[in-house]
Amino acid sequence: MSLLDVEIVPVSNEPAYRSVVRRIETKIMSGEWAVGDRVPAETTLAQDLGVHRSTIREAIRVLEQNGLVRRHDGGKLLFVTAPREADISSKITAAIVLQEVTFFELWESMRCIEPALVEGAASRISEDTLDALQENVERTRVAYEDKKSLVQLDIEFHQLIATASGNRALQLCRQPISQLFYPAFLNVFSRLNAGERLVFAHEKILQALRGRDAAVAREWMDKHVVDFRRGYELASLDIDAPVGWPGKIDAA
Amino acid sequence: MSLLDVEIVPVSNEPAYRSVVRRIETKIMSGEWAVGDRVPAETTLAQDLGVHRSTIREAIRVLEQNGLVRRHDGGKLLFVTAPREADISSKITAAIVLQEVTFFELWESMRCIEPALVEGAASRISEDTLDALQENVERTRVAYEDKKSLVQLDIEFHQLIATASGNRALQLCRQPISQLFYPAFLNVFSRLNAGERLVFAHEKILQALRGRDAAVAREWMDKHVVDFRRGYELASLDIDAPVGWPGKIDAA
Repeated sequence: MSLLDVEIVPVSNEPAYRSVVRRIETKIMSGEWAVGDRVPAETTLAQDLGVHRSTIREAIRVLEQNGLVRRHDGGKLLFVTAPREADISSKITAAIVLQEVTFFELWESMRCIEPALVEGAASRISEDTLDALQENVERTRVAYEDKKSLVQLDIEFHQLIATASGNRALQLCRQPISQLFYPAFLNVFSRLNAGERLVFAHEKILQALRGRDAAVAREWMDKHVVDFRRGYELASLDIDAPVGWPGKIDAA
Repeated sequence: MSLLDVEIVPVSNEPAYRSVVRRIETKIMSGEWAVGDRVPAETTLAQDLGVHRSTIREAIRVLEQNGLVRRHDGGKLLFVTAPREADISSKITAAIVLQEVTFFELWESMRCIEPALVEGAASRISEDTLDALQENVERTRVAYEDKKSLVQLDIEFHQLIATASGNRALQLCRQPISQLFYPAFLNVFSRLNAGERLVFAHEKILQALRGRDAAVAREWMDKHVVDFRRGYELASLDIDAPVGWPGKIDAA
């Protein structure tokens, strides 16, 4: 478990903790420390790397924040872990908001991602998920007046399909974009009393998924995402305005 | 600039530095601290938040790693910044590799993203970028035998188009996926001496972009990405194997 053999490209002015972060990252990414392995004790790491224990502690904090190591159930022991969607999502969200990405860019992204996911889901979705979608559509049908539930149900509908696609790379990308996209667009969409239109599209998508018809599922998803933009424009909102922050920081 | 008014949801067992991270994140995300603003001095923050200065320092380190604050040119002063692609990319890469995402999932993601980007680029690409693509294609034409250059030139070709799309949300997602995708697939692709085929597709795409023909550009990009998969299968490689790590950690 000695770390001294790792080749590290020297970086000028790099603080000590950051070079420790990179050394440990290399061990984890290369699989030398596998997901599930225990991370060596601070004192061992400090000795192996020839740095102070407090430097190790700083590095561990950064690795924890990035989801590469985690303590189980509040215990003291640290384990190597694969970063979860939540570890990544808040960081992409921050980049999107602070780079002042526009609603149009989000919409264009969703128009790219959602049809691809439903196409993948058509051949991979389970009967259980189809039933969950059915239940979701039935609850949506009676929620036209309750705008908050409508938003939640819509997010759930699309989330179920994303998961059913089985594509984890696309899901990682989609998560932060959808969290910014759906609430913003649906607040408008529901003001136009477009609930009926929403349920109609969801029903068509579900029907295509039940029939394992990837092309039709894709086509309806595309129409559905195009509808969002129409709703936004009907409400005379500026689609080229920056997204802004919905105001929630997840406790990672 | 007092931080005491920020409402923070209490999280059990949360270390002090992490609650400081969330308070400052809230200030930045809400725009109260704007991008470009100076971050208050450590002593000021420690006083305002009623924590030790070392806790502030730990929090600042995490914020730096996430690209929310940065020092300019190695100076001491900290400024609020928008996270850059590079701040995010390595984190998504880690999640993809450690979650053991397969080549198939990467390929499916690229098949989703690349045609959408070229479609967007068709109406937004500048004459300068068209010229850069032309030059890229010409250099690729004489690089058939030099596999390493071929990979680099291919990455550059697709990167130019991604940037020309003007969609920053999709670019954020694409960056880590493409970094894992192109080297892996092209190593195989070039073994099959498919350089000619590669240049042919790039030429068709460039021609469509020059003609501002979004549909044709999209169609050729789709064929091109499908070709990658064919090359991979012709080489009898397992497309359902996990991606693995190409072995480079960027110094952030």
